[in-house]
Amino acid sequence: MKVTIIGLGLIGGSMALDLRKAGVATKLMGLDQNLSNAKKAVDLKIVDEVLPENEALAKADLVILAIPVNALCAFLPSVLDAVNKNAVVIDAGSTKKMICNSVANHPKRNQFVASHPIAGTEFSGPEAAFNGLFENKTNIICEQEKSSAKALTTAEKVFKTLGMNTIFMEPEEHDKHVAYVSHLSHVSSFLLGQTVLDIEKDEKNIFDLAGSGFASTVRLAKSSPEMWTPIFEQNAEYLSQALLEYIMHLQKFQYHLQKRDAKELHKIMTKANDIKRILKS
Amino acid sequence: MKVTIIGLGLIGGSMALDLRKAGVATKLMGLDQNLSNAKKAVDLKIVDEVLPENEALAKADLVILAIPVNALCAFLPSVLDAVNKNAVVIDAGSTKKMICNSVANHPKRNQFVASHPIAGTEFSGPEAAFNGLFENKTNIICEQEKSSAKALTTAEKVFKTLGMNTIFMEPEEHDKHVAYVSHLSHVSSFLLGQTVLDIEKDEKNIFDLAGSGFASTVRLAKSSPEMWTPIFEQNAEYLSQALLEYIMHLQKFQYHLQKRDAKELHKIMTKANDIKRILKS
Repeated sequence: MKVTIIGLGLIGGSMALDLRKAGVATKLMGLDQNLSNAKKAVDLKIVDEVLPENEALAKADLVILAIPVNALCAFLPSVLDAVNKNAVVIDAGSTKKMICNSVANHPKRNQFVASHPIAGTEFSGPEAAFNGLFENKTNIICEQEKSSAKALTTAEKVFKTLGMNTIFMEPEEHDKHVAYVSHLSHVSSFLLGQTVLDIEKDEKNIFDLAGSGFASTVRLAKSSPEMWTPIFEQNAEYLSQALLEYIMHLQKFQYHLQKRDAKELHKIMTKANDIKRILKS
Repeated sequence: MKVTIIGLGLIGGSMALDLRKAGVATKLMGLDQNLSNAKKAVDLKIVDEVLPENEALAKADLVILAIPVNALCAFLPSVLDAVNKNAVVIDAGSTKKMICNSVANHPKRNQFVASHPIAGTEFSGPEAAFNGLFENKTNIICEQEKSSAKALTTAEKVFKTLGMNTIFMEPEEHDKHVAYVSHLSHVSSFLLGQTVLDIEKDEKNIFDLAGSGFASTVRLAKSSPEMWTPIFEQNAEYLSQALLEYIMHLQKFQYHLQKRDAKELHKIMTKANDIKRILKS
């Protein structure tokens, strides 16, 4: 299968590496608006070559879009326009409603499979790509009834090759769930980082005291603003709601804290401990 | 050196394992008000034997207290009463002001070294103890001028054996710094867990979508409420202030989010990215 990857960063690059290793991709073509990243992806043997847009799209049996979600919405219709009628197009965007809407009435809608392979690290760019990023992770496919049988079979084969477990969900449901279990974590981490950086202006060497707990909760604050700004923007409604609930819980905790109400604090933490049921390790 | 460990959990147990391995402890005695943990600590060879309190204190050259900080304040004066005049007493509490105050006027104050070895995991109990927990981490000693030269030398030897880098700080300064770089992380994580558990009541299978980012930010929500309630209570003033600042940042973000102000969101995240300067890996 001839595969064109649009966006040669962590996600697109890691997919390319896995598809090549499994022999699913016999030829890998790439596109990236960042020319330095495009060159690196060739140097790192993530793709065989970088081609002009029309050529890379016309020659592909499979096109994977792994670019920021605002670029995805803008670019996806013209990608569908340009691919040949047997090609399959898959995206890897972290929001689904606006992306699905962007091609809702496209004549080639059934060649597209709306996907969200849930994986990543706080790093970005082709150097961050590695084999196995997606292994044992979950992939979501939305509006599967709008994709042709061939397109769905191809997409499922791709995600199986990556080692992922695919589940199906409507775009609204997807966006709501990821607001809580992914996007909120990122906001909480970005602002935790900001709060501690702020106090650092007055308190020198404060980071000497940072333990592994701090490193773990603040890790996502290193994530790319270019990637996350449009995700937050597209999922503003659900994320805003999740954020208000989070703030409400924090305020309640702060209220009990300033009253030194040990019993209430203990109760809240004991309830939160139930997260052990979900996160086994 | 004959060492008595009071509190045979993650911290006390891991210290015992390292001190034995290095040959610094020739005999290890233990105390734990939880008799099942005390038995486990003997079975796991963390300590040689569990002795009655008076005996374990009278025989020790070094006593290490690794118990919740409320128990520490209550128990530390009578530990100093009971030890012999050449013994050294070290604590491992995560707050320092109230602990230092509890023995400020004790006649044997100079036999005590107020310490906070900053290390841990979200697990607790003797089974959670392991060799190397403290390696390359930071230890804080407070009010070093109130400890005798002998006590300080012994404490420094202990923390060096654990592989720690010791720095010195006043109790107030310590409590303020850890409010930001340790205690706030725990609160943020506990309440993130709570927020997502709450929404789970309405949205089944929401955790299928949780990626490694969520796992990393919510890990500390598994921590022990028995240990953390008294820490938060003792550090309520500084933690409450840190929490209010965190909430203010979150509210500001939510304000820009609901206005879909991409430029402001991007600006906030770019500032938070500066955390890369501190967290290299």
